[in-house]
Amino acid sequence: MALEGNMIIAQSGGPTTVINAGVQGAVEEAMKHSEIKEIYAAHNSILGVLKEEIFDLRKEDIEDIKGLSMTPAAALGSSRYKIKTEEEIKKIFNIFKKYNIRYFFYSGGNDSMDTADKINKLAAEENYDIRVMGIPKTIDNDLAHTDHTPGYGSVIKYLSTMVMEAGKDTEAMYTIDTVNIIEAMGRNAGWIAAGTALAHRTEEDAPHIILLPEVPFNRERFVDKVKETLDKFKRAVIVVSEGTKHPDGTYIAEQKGEFSKDSFGHKQLGGAALFIKNIIETDVKVKARFAIPSTIQRTGMHFASKTDVDEAYLAGKSAVQKAVEGVSGYMITFKRVSDNPYKIEIDMAKLSDVANDEKPLPEEWITEDGFFVTKDFYNYALPLIQGEAPIRIKDGLPSYIRFKKHWVKL
Amino acid sequence: MALEGNMIIAQSGGPTTVINAGVQGAVEEAMKHSEIKEIYAAHNSILGVLKEEIFDLRKEDIEDIKGLSMTPAAALGSSRYKIKTEEEIKKIFNIFKKYNIRYFFYSGGNDSMDTADKINKLAAEENYDIRVMGIPKTIDNDLAHTDHTPGYGSVIKYLSTMVMEAGKDTEAMYTIDTVNIIEAMGRNAGWIAAGTALAHRTEEDAPHIILLPEVPFNRERFVDKVKETLDKFKRAVIVVSEGTKHPDGTYIAEQKGEFSKDSFGHKQLGGAALFIKNIIETDVKVKARFAIPSTIQRTGMHFASKTDVDEAYLAGKSAVQKAVEGVSGYMITFKRVSDNPYKIEIDMAKLSDVANDEKPLPEEWITEDGFFVTKDFYNYALPLIQGEAPIRIKDGLPSYIRFKKHWVKL
Repeated sequence: MALEGNMIIAQSGGPTTVINAGVQGAVEEAMKHSEIKEIYAAHNSILGVLKEEIFDLRKEDIEDIKGLSMTPAAALGSSRYKIKTEEEIKKIFNIFKKYNIRYFFYSGGNDSMDTADKINKLAAEENYDIRVMGIPKTIDNDLAHTDHTPGYGSVIKYLSTMVMEAGKDTEAMYTIDTVNIIEAMGRNAGWIAAGTALAHRTEEDAPHIILLPEVPFNRERFVDKVKETLDKFKRAVIVVSEGTKHPDGTYIAEQKGEFSKDSFGHKQLGGAALFIKNIIETDVKVKARFAIPSTIQRTGMHFASKTDVDEAYLAGKSAVQKAVEGVSGYMITFKRVSDNPYKIEIDMAKLSDVANDEKPLPEEWITEDGFFVTKDFYNYALPLIQGEAPIRIKDGLPSYIRFKKHWVKL
Repeated sequence: MALEGNMIIAQSGGPTTVINAGVQGAVEEAMKHSEIKEIYAAHNSILGVLKEEIFDLRKEDIEDIKGLSMTPAAALGSSRYKIKTEEEIKKIFNIFKKYNIRYFFYSGGNDSMDTADKINKLAAEENYDIRVMGIPKTIDNDLAHTDHTPGYGSVIKYLSTMVMEAGKDTEAMYTIDTVNIIEAMGRNAGWIAAGTALAHRTEEDAPHIILLPEVPFNRERFVDKVKETLDKFKRAVIVVSEGTKHPDGTYIAEQKGEFSKDSFGHKQLGGAALFIKNIIETDVKVKARFAIPSTIQRTGMHFASKTDVDEAYLAGKSAVQKAVEGVSGYMITFKRVSDNPYKIEIDMAKLSDVANDEKPLPEEWITEDGFFVTKDFYNYALPLIQGEAPIRIKDGLPSYIRFKKHWVKL
């Protein structure tokens, strides 16, 4: 028998270009099922439940719902709030009961899947019928049990484009701006930095060197590699992952010892690019520029991967379909059937399995010298960036939606 | 009588998204005129003349010529080489004679126009018939005698989009990433930073504060403005021009005194965003992120202004047309006929006039509090970002051209 009741959806963790497409997929699917009554959004992830900051998605303009897949970041609001206690899980559960929530969809990474799992388990203990489903999300692509995560394709498509374009700049200006360093996100794994290899179509194309968190930084070998690149091409474009580490495991961005704190006494974070710039100017004695795209790279809706947006939509839609069919306690996953032609199938993994695992960049996809990735990585990543997602344009700039947020007061 | 002989074209200074479109306009126009024999390119600006690194554009694939307006940076190569002596001008002139150069087109800013002017004058003194024309170029938009410069529309279209997208990120994540700072290029004038105001469609939209080189930085007033913004919107997105200065005229990026050199003893350049971040974390006590798009902002071909690309093409084409008609010693300029509907006419200015003048951001276009720009600026800038220029896509990423460079050996 169909489970009747209300639905709530939330977005957690760092935004991606396509996390809203997942919400659109879920909401549009939910609207087809009469057993799903109210469709609520929790403001700023699970925080919105704890604080009862909940708004009504059925009251939003339908054009705004349709605009979700053409809007980056997190239209429901997000946060990095971590559930710390059993008390909080109980509180969430009680609020769910109060609002007659029978369908809970949580878009996020490991921590979010852990939270969803705990709520699902508590509900089972308390014999409260609810369907809890995870929708995978992270630009970092480090969620286990899925071929890839929505958000990854778009971040590497956009960042590759930036590297390609900045590479053309360096190619034009090498007589003065000889080295260019671009800092990629990814604190724990090199997936994002590795993705910029897609811009490197010929030996001469940027990036020439990729510094990955998986490969301990060796100043001498790096400097040799830069010199070798300059000998060949008179320029070098380097992508450095913010997660790149010294052999002792500390981040190069931390600037310990020789690389001190800034003059405010703050630790220099986001400083991986600056660290590399300083080494090049000191050891190679050529001018180096650097760029830190920061959050810009994860919100590049104006040049997002259509494949990624479509898959994110499908993940959200599938989560609702599975829930309506009676599934609970799983996250939607992608299973790759083939690279060429590219084909995926929707699958599922237990929330607890996703919560406690992670997917590193395979060691065998890193070249022997540690400064690039192999053809196997290329075959894996290339299908994920195909197509350009449509956006709305107004007066020469993108037009992104903002919900009116009709707050639910019980 | 038509002046028969060879043509040379060069690109100088920092790349822009559309500088190659000007070359395409010039080359395609030149191909229509039988008096123009060889069509040469000087590699890396005037340096290519001095070093006789000259390549033959007639030998390039026609598809690559057509691809120029769909390729950012400087396909001929550029540099910041400055002509320092009369000797060098004479050397250039002699090389021009050697290669029978009768048409010289130079795309660049003030310094380039000064070089072109000196060559033109020397040729006149020596009774050597040559047509020298300037093609305006600079993302900085500070060339005098023209309504705007090719390159400006595209840099502000793309940077506005970045600010809009990063703004959506901050809107989603304000509970942790409360302030976001984006550093804009523009060492001498605030045109680029000001341009990001186009993303600010409602009071709530990023950017909320723009720091301009024209307004001396006042820490206390700035901090008050940030606090006021946080009170209203719980977040603040700040665009800081790299050219922002202390009241004593030194750049905030220089980090003098309290803001010392880095641990290598290097001056901290590109540090305007970091300076502002430190002030916010110290005085406002909220977390601030920052992004430094650096050269990425000036090469965003994948989201360039069609208006800008078309005008750049027209500037190149017009320069050749004027030269063939007998004009020499002028730079092509744009004269705005009306804002709405937007209409420009091609005009000209003396090279010497352009060389010795600059166009500041009008003081009356800066709001009274100094933290934003007025509606008049908006009316000026909006037409410049209209339309999206087409690009070639291959395997999900842009496909940009690279010349084969058939070197000319005399």
